[in-house]
Amino acid sequence: MNLNARFQALLADMKLEGRYRTFIELERLAGAFPAALWRAQDGLRRHVTVWCSNDYLGMGQNPDVLAAMHQSLDFSGAGTGGTRNISGTNRQHVALEAALADLHDKESALIFTSGWISNLAALGTLGRALPGCAIFSDALNHNSMIEGIRRSGAERFIFRHNDVAHLDELMGQVAPDRPKIVAFESVYSMDGDVAPIAAICDVAEKHGAITYLDEVHAVGLYGARGGGVAERDGVAHRVTLIEGTLAKAFGVMGGYVAGPALMMDVIRSMADSFIFTTSLCPHLAAGALAAVNHVATHPEERAALARNVETLRGMLLAAGIPVMDSASHILPVLVGDAHLCKRTSDLLLQEHDIYVQPVNYPTVPRGTERLRITTTPFHTQEHMRALVYALRTVGRQLGWVEQRAA
Amino acid sequence: MNLNARFQALLADMKLEGRYRTFIELERLAGAFPAALWRAQDGLRRHVTVWCSNDYLGMGQNPDVLAAMHQSLDFSGAGTGGTRNISGTNRQHVALEAALADLHDKESALIFTSGWISNLAALGTLGRALPGCAIFSDALNHNSMIEGIRRSGAERFIFRHNDVAHLDELMGQVAPDRPKIVAFESVYSMDGDVAPIAAICDVAEKHGAITYLDEVHAVGLYGARGGGVAERDGVAHRVTLIEGTLAKAFGVMGGYVAGPALMMDVIRSMADSFIFTTSLCPHLAAGALAAVNHVATHPEERAALARNVETLRGMLLAAGIPVMDSASHILPVLVGDAHLCKRTSDLLLQEHDIYVQPVNYPTVPRGTERLRITTTPFHTQEHMRALVYALRTVGRQLGWVEQRAA
Repeated sequence: MNLNARFQALLADMKLEGRYRTFIELERLAGAFPAALWRAQDGLRRHVTVWCSNDYLGMGQNPDVLAAMHQSLDFSGAGTGGTRNISGTNRQHVALEAALADLHDKESALIFTSGWISNLAALGTLGRALPGCAIFSDALNHNSMIEGIRRSGAERFIFRHNDVAHLDELMGQVAPDRPKIVAFESVYSMDGDVAPIAAICDVAEKHGAITYLDEVHAVGLYGARGGGVAERDGVAHRVTLIEGTLAKAFGVMGGYVAGPALMMDVIRSMADSFIFTTSLCPHLAAGALAAVNHVATHPEERAALARNVETLRGMLLAAGIPVMDSASHILPVLVGDAHLCKRTSDLLLQEHDIYVQPVNYPTVPRGTERLRITTTPFHTQEHMRALVYALRTVGRQLGWVEQRAA
Repeated sequence: MNLNARFQALLADMKLEGRYRTFIELERLAGAFPAALWRAQDGLRRHVTVWCSNDYLGMGQNPDVLAAMHQSLDFSGAGTGGTRNISGTNRQHVALEAALADLHDKESALIFTSGWISNLAALGTLGRALPGCAIFSDALNHNSMIEGIRRSGAERFIFRHNDVAHLDELMGQVAPDRPKIVAFESVYSMDGDVAPIAAICDVAEKHGAITYLDEVHAVGLYGARGGGVAERDGVAHRVTLIEGTLAKAFGVMGGYVAGPALMMDVIRSMADSFIFTTSLCPHLAAGALAAVNHVATHPEERAALARNVETLRGMLLAAGIPVMDSASHILPVLVGDAHLCKRTSDLLLQEHDIYVQPVNYPTVPRGTERLRITTTPFHTQEHMRALVYALRTVGRQLGWVEQRAA
């Protein structure tokens, strides 16, 4: 076999379908977010406004966070030089894990180098540790949860997205004494809709199942202390394990799981992807801890974000931009074609200094290609007006926004 | 099923076998490495000497590295807030990837949040992209390579450790037109032995295979610029892909793969574990770039490490400590029993202020439990004398060092 020809064919297919990804080279500017420098084709750098970041609260430039990181870098240096077991557990990790357990009212927490690994490790291990385990997975669960479930070797049952009756029906078909895990998300990243957590817990409790809730797009943003949708809805105590990220609303990187100490001990002791990995740099843990503490004590920043989301949603709808239904801070704008979506993004960047990455298959189903717009407390009314104007202009130019609207 | 009872039984088994892991809480001290603070059972912190870090050159406290990280933190802030595709590619990533490609004389490089993910993503994707692919894997390959091969779905053939004739024999049994990948390491972490890279390349070339070489315990330490054993042996150009880490000799965190641009593009475009993960913080990439540049231009630090390794090896052998054969900077001391190994480590820490974590199953086979000792240019003769004295004292006390030796 000609290997290069095979590789070239794979990439050519992606290009043909419009889903070949071109990474936009940015340079983030601490203190100026959502502005960033974009390195254009001509090699020159231009200021653009970022409208697709998951740094939802701008914690990536928060002075408390940066100060904690600088201080820890000075004190403890850069990397740990080891796995958690071999010289890689530091004071900073232990302190962060205690704070995350407290945030979610759980006995214990465990941090990982990414949210992707959190899900792989936690679901992969729990499913494998329980003989005969059945895992019930929401149809729109994130890739990392799917990989974790696959890795566990447990039997998988997929329930229709947020469909509690279907979940109940599937669970009723499995022998009562089999171990069961219900895995779902609170805020679904690409649609922005929210799970009925309490109702899912009702069904899970009825069938004696562990519940595993991915709150990566919710921690820091919902609940009195930023504990997520489960905290907001007053149901955190009913969820067995909560998975979160340090890389979005908390502005740093890494992921975590919080839950019963016994399960955390099993994951810690058995997950290959945890055992065989150098631990997170101590200063990242210190920065994340500062972020968790800042977010817990600044509900007004969450409120400012929520206000901006509603303002922008209203402005987009008024301008005839097809914003998809969303019950969260995520505002997906439906374009519906991979090439159009990519072309829209290119024109926004080149002609309007606005950066929104196109979201195409496999991140979303074909035919639902979209611009996933996220605002922050740092986006002003002026930023919003410029975005709406640019979207309407480009959308009309390319035919996916009606000429008559607005 | 009583789930808690099941979890408790799993942990009880580990404890019984002496392989339950207790994380030692350290606080690294930039500028004072290999000294660190250890939080003892009584909650008090004591100074200890670390003898089991993979921060082989002490780059975790290198002033160039820390300065680059501070500067980038000030300029660009903490996290990127996005995957590489969605607002998460920054100038710092692009610069680091160019430097890593150059270090290994490859067309292109791709960074990941960990070395574990590098192997999962690269092997998992290449094996999956090539229909009918056969992957030939050294028997002692790291867990992350095994996971990558498993994830690829390719047929796996395991050749005896470093056994080129066996590799040739296995490859001869597979149809000539099937795509083939030979996956191996240069320095094996737990034994410290080194692969015959040229001879493996001979066989791979004879059978038209891609070669994939994990150099995580070698980059920064071998070769004129720290390009690894392949550079030292003058065979880097014969290896298709080289995988490395930013978390050991380069002192930060993260992993990477360097190779042909076409294959890097395939991995970048298809690997779930890469696509769906927030990118490395820009300042980590900046710190790693500073480390790569520092290491490339400071061969005298590699030489100092090599001298220290030979000095310590001689001292250990002279004292009758059972150092295993090793052709690298890793000095494994065989204890051979999980409980004894753990007890040795406890006594070294509690009575001698020396920290060497026990290495037990599953990291090494049962019956070969060991203390994996690593020195650095920062370990002095005085540190070494203290280590040898402590090992001899504790080893005799517990019966795994002969009374009469030395």
